Amino acid sequence: MDKFDYIENPHRRYNPLTGEWILVSPHRSKRPWQGQVEKVVEDVRPPHDPNCYLCPRNERVGGENNPDYKDVYSFQNDFSALLQDTPKGKFEDGELFKAESESGVCKVLCFSPDHSLTVPEMEVDNIRKVVDLWCKEYDELGSREDIGYVQIFENKGAIMGCSNPHPHGQIWASALVPLETSKESETQKEYFEQHGRTMLFDYLNSELEKKERILVENNSFVALVPFWAVWPFETMIISKRPVSNLLELTDEEKTDLADIYKKLTIMYDNLFEVSFAYSAGLHQAPTDGEEHPEWHLHMHFYPPLLRSASVKKFMVGYEMLGTPQRDITAEGAALRLRELSKVHYKSKTK
Amino acid sequence: MDKFDYIENPHRRYNPLTGEWILVSPHRSKRPWQGQVEKVVEDVRPPHDPNCYLCPRNERVGGENNPDYKDVYSFQNDFSALLQDTPKGKFEDGELFKAESESGVCKVLCFSPDHSLTVPEMEVDNIRKVVDLWCKEYDELGSREDIGYVQIFENKGAIMGCSNPHPHGQIWASALVPLETSKESETQKEYFEQHGRTMLFDYLNSELEKKERILVENNSFVALVPFWAVWPFETMIISKRPVSNLLELTDEEKTDLADIYKKLTIMYDNLFEVSFAYSAGLHQAPTDGEEHPEWHLHMHFYPPLLRSASVKKFMVGYEMLGTPQRDITAEGAALRLRELSKVHYKSKTK
Ligand SMILES: O=P(O)(O)O[C@H]1O[C@H](CO)[C@@H](O)[C@H](O)[C@H]1O
Ligand SMILES: O=P(O)(O)O[C@H]1O[C@H](CO)[C@@H](O)[C@H](O)[C@H]1O
Repeated sequence: MDKFDYIENPHRRYNPLTGEWILVSPHRSKRPWQGQVEKVVEDVRPPHDPNCYLCPRNERVGGENNPDYKDVYSFQNDFSALLQDTPKGKFEDGELFKAESESGVCKVLCFSPDHSLTVPEMEVDNIRKVVDLWCKEYDELGSREDIGYVQIFENKGAIMGCSNPHPHGQIWASALVPLETSKESETQKEYFEQHGRTMLFDYLNSELEKKERILVENNSFVALVPFWAVWPFETMIISKRPVSNLLELTDEEKTDLADIYKKLTIMYDNLFEVSFAYSAGLHQAPTDGEEHPEWHLHMHFYPPLLRSASVKKFMVGYEMLGTPQRDITAEGAALRLRELSKVHYKSKTK
Repeated sequence: MDKFDYIENPHRRYNPLTGEWILVSPHRSKRPWQGQVEKVVEDVRPPHDPNCYLCPRNERVGGENNPDYKDVYSFQNDFSALLQDTPKGKFEDGELFKAESESGVCKVLCFSPDHSLTVPEMEVDNIRKVVDLWCKEYDELGSREDIGYVQIFENKGAIMGCSNPHPHGQIWASALVPLETSKESETQKEYFEQHGRTMLFDYLNSELEKKERILVENNSFVALVPFWAVWPFETMIISKRPVSNLLELTDEEKTDLADIYKKLTIMYDNLFEVSFAYSAGLHQAPTDGEEHPEWHLHMHFYPPLLRSASVKKFMVGYEMLGTPQRDITAEGAALRLRELSKVHYKSKTK
């Protein structure tokens, strides 16, 4: 019998951050695709759209007008999923029916007044202003007694449920720690207690030695395809220094975060020469008033595309009922991304 | 301060089958939708399509021809994600890099020779033949030494990644128990050890008393919206008698499973008067050679649509990085489904 080889044979990989396994079927990328194809909208947008509720000066759904903002701007989501004034309480009927109230704050973060831009097309200096806004919001929201976790994220692209192409992100800040970050809290805590170092510090250093999943790095951050990636081109940005949250970053590190955010999203856009959709978000220490030396700041990118600008990976059927599954290896995805030009395809064709 | 009310206020609900919490934002269904709308394909299909690789007599991608089958037909998936001859082995480098080989069998199950049909449009007698095929496959695959779990499922509709509208389902049978069913194994085991009854037996009886989430029932099965549903119109079919797998069903119960499968999917089609997409699948005892009195046979339905035939729920951003979230309550969804006609909308307009 041949020897097991994780580049060739179907296998499971362990995600030490969630404590869960995923399924990899490397041979399956060869299957033809006769299913749904996505609309590719390569729209040229004006710098100001009178119908966009995120552009400066325009009216929002709530009736309010946006200020004439010049760089970044944040406001409370007009359709917040979490509300501040939720009455506290529980409903319990035996152990099978349990509900408890959840309160919080939802905000929208405009990344730029320019409606036509996306992160990979913005200047690093301007992305740095987004990073500064993240810091300010994490600080303000996180200091509140009633906020235990500040989830900062960006949904980009219509196929990721984003309903407005204006460059923006969101924050959902909640009293309780959400599901995914509570898994990561537990695994990181256990690792830190055993080793006295953060899990992602050790992980990152191993990856920097192995090199096969590294995409790009600067002085303070590394972008890579994690060994346990489940989305075809899933990536992570990890800080080289073990910091637990944004507020511990130095001035230089904040600029480096802006820099690597741009570099990674340029790779993404260049992959299929299309504005690349994804959900991305920062994972950092809960703001529950405790110290969190086990937490290591990182950012996840979950992009849906698989084969081309119009064919995505469907996480359905077996993935929902059984185990998340991928068709190409993390190593193959890293190789493809790494070999792409570092210059945005649009600026080349200009 | 007002009292907490889980019909009105944002809250978390506990899923006792997975041991995880989900977020409910009842007030949020009022927000306008400016995002992606799905193509609604109300295609009229011929009973036999010469280009369909699942129709009788046609050629498949592998070069083989389908037999001239008269009711149901199963064959090995030409693009199996799991392979039988995978060499056994592990890769381990510290505790952060772990992979192990996974082997198994993937099959495709044609539900009918008639290309134009879907489950809600099939006769109960013919759906019963699908149930019998599930039994046969579960028995054959499950008896094998190298198969520990037999996952039977159906992806329906292009927006659920289904690449062929011919009525069909799939089986992915693996050596190891997949992620979702291993969570359910643990929670059900714990419950059974404590109470001497299956979790879903107690849960179902409570629901039958409460009535507010019940959709339809027959002698042997109940279809309901679980208290912890996360997809807008997520449902479950649960057997009234605590059986751990399909093979324990009596002849009458098998027909009743076919009957409720049809009744539930008619409700789904009638909701937006469109062929309703979903991923559905049976969860039952692992085939690892052990007894599983804790396991209670059930079927999950995860449909993506939210507001209309063309607006789906996006499980992105906060859902991927934080906690799965829904905009309408389980009770509201149940009420809407329950009030729909029991006759398929297409047969009324004929
Ligand atoms: O096997 P199919 O129908 O080609 O593919 C579909 O179902 C599979 C199992 O749920 C998924 O892994 C694929 O992403 C989906 O497109
Ligand atoms: O808040 P938006 O952009 O309207 O909505 C989008 O992001 C939310 C948070 O990830 C999701 O719950 C919605 O399903 C998605 O459409």
